[in-house]
Amino acid sequence: MDNMNLSKHISGQFNAELEDVRNRVMAMGGLVEEQLTNALSVLQSGDDELAKKVVARDRKVNTLEVSIDEECTRIIAKRQPAASDLRLVLAISKTVSDLERIGDSAERIARLATEHHSKRQRGMLVSMDAMGRHTLKMLHEVLDAFARMDVDAALRIHKEDAKVDAEYEAVVRQLMTFMMEDPRSIPNVLDVLWAARALERVGDRCQNICEYIIYYVKGKDVRHLDMNQVEDLLK
Amino acid sequence: MDNMNLSKHISGQFNAELEDVRNRVMAMGGLVEEQLTNALSVLQSGDDELAKKVVARDRKVNTLEVSIDEECTRIIAKRQPAASDLRLVLAISKTVSDLERIGDSAERIARLATEHHSKRQRGMLVSMDAMGRHTLKMLHEVLDAFARMDVDAALRIHKEDAKVDAEYEAVVRQLMTFMMEDPRSIPNVLDVLWAARALERVGDRCQNICEYIIYYVKGKDVRHLDMNQVEDLLK
Repeated sequence: MDNMNLSKHISGQFNAELEDVRNRVMAMGGLVEEQLTNALSVLQSGDDELAKKVVARDRKVNTLEVSIDEECTRIIAKRQPAASDLRLVLAISKTVSDLERIGDSAERIARLATEHHSKRQRGMLVSMDAMGRHTLKMLHEVLDAFARMDVDAALRIHKEDAKVDAEYEAVVRQLMTFMMEDPRSIPNVLDVLWAARALERVGDRCQNICEYIIYYVKGKDVRHLDMNQVEDLLK
Repeated sequence: MDNMNLSKHISGQFNAELEDVRNRVMAMGGLVEEQLTNALSVLQSGDDELAKKVVARDRKVNTLEVSIDEECTRIIAKRQPAASDLRLVLAISKTVSDLERIGDSAERIARLATEHHSKRQRGMLVSMDAMGRHTLKMLHEVLDAFARMDVDAALRIHKEDAKVDAEYEAVVRQLMTFMMEDPRSIPNVLDVLWAARALERVGDRCQNICEYIIYYVKGKDVRHLDMNQVEDLLK
């Protein structure tokens, strides 16, 4: 009887630990979402102070990645999780790595946006608006899907990236026109191009997180597979 | 006595499994190194057949990533490794993820190099030679350091990336000159720029692998730290 209580207690503690680390991922996700929101706002406004805030807070994102990943390692070593518990811990470890890189993209965008926010360039930056909104929506939704470990949402969001890619291609074409019309603008336009590229990569990172959700829930590693194949696989 | 033999036997098997998965990482590393070598050779020659080979073999790289990562998960679940064994398995899991992305860069470079290998553009591609050689050397050395789990080498290679970054900046400046001199060349030059960027990212991935080597040997997560700080930390 004592043993059973002990075992319940240990398991209860273990559950609490898993719950705690999940909550920390969600908190980190919230911070990264705020960073991207602010970076996109700098694109619009050129607000120097806000850009500095985004750059400074990226260190907080980095610290969260390392501390959550350490917590995952500690849980594996101490609790020796199996099956879905182990998959959860591994999915979390990979997710925080992608969230950290989304944070890097936000920092990069904020930095580039404020460096090149003359009137002349505002027109270029505006071309990224639709893409920015779309990427932010993808990030918001994937964090939501992660919180609920919702495979159907993950599959849907994964496909959304095709739209971000198309918007990115449109931005690149527009920026090329700018450069051809005014070759002196090339160095500045390239910086805007890097910002667009950083934003496009956010979509890819969101796709990765979708794959970890599917891995956790279904126990299948679907990296490098076509999502139509994946849907067949999960039927 | 029987128990002791059993325990020895299990431990022997476990060692064999760890050894096996390490060997598979080295084999994957060898393949990725070959992919990058061939991609850089396509930059020089524009060899279509070789480019196709690189593109086709990237699927093999992807498959290796997934299968080695699965093996890592299996080992964690079955062997419940602790301390340095666990760190080794986690370091391997992260390393194959970076190797896969180096493979993606190689594929991207091969694809872009063959698409834009007219005489006119060869001059631009040549500007990437030094950077290519340097990056390849970094990859070769980091795989060597991984095989020997050599922290001193990892620290040294980590610093090498600053040179790759400087070469990358020089390539970008040269490509900007091309674009300004002949604005019609902009779409093609941008593709070369993407190839240069992919190459620059290879250096970053090598740095990540250096960090996993330090993590395994020293038990310290040094991501996001300055390498001079790290050296002080490891003294």
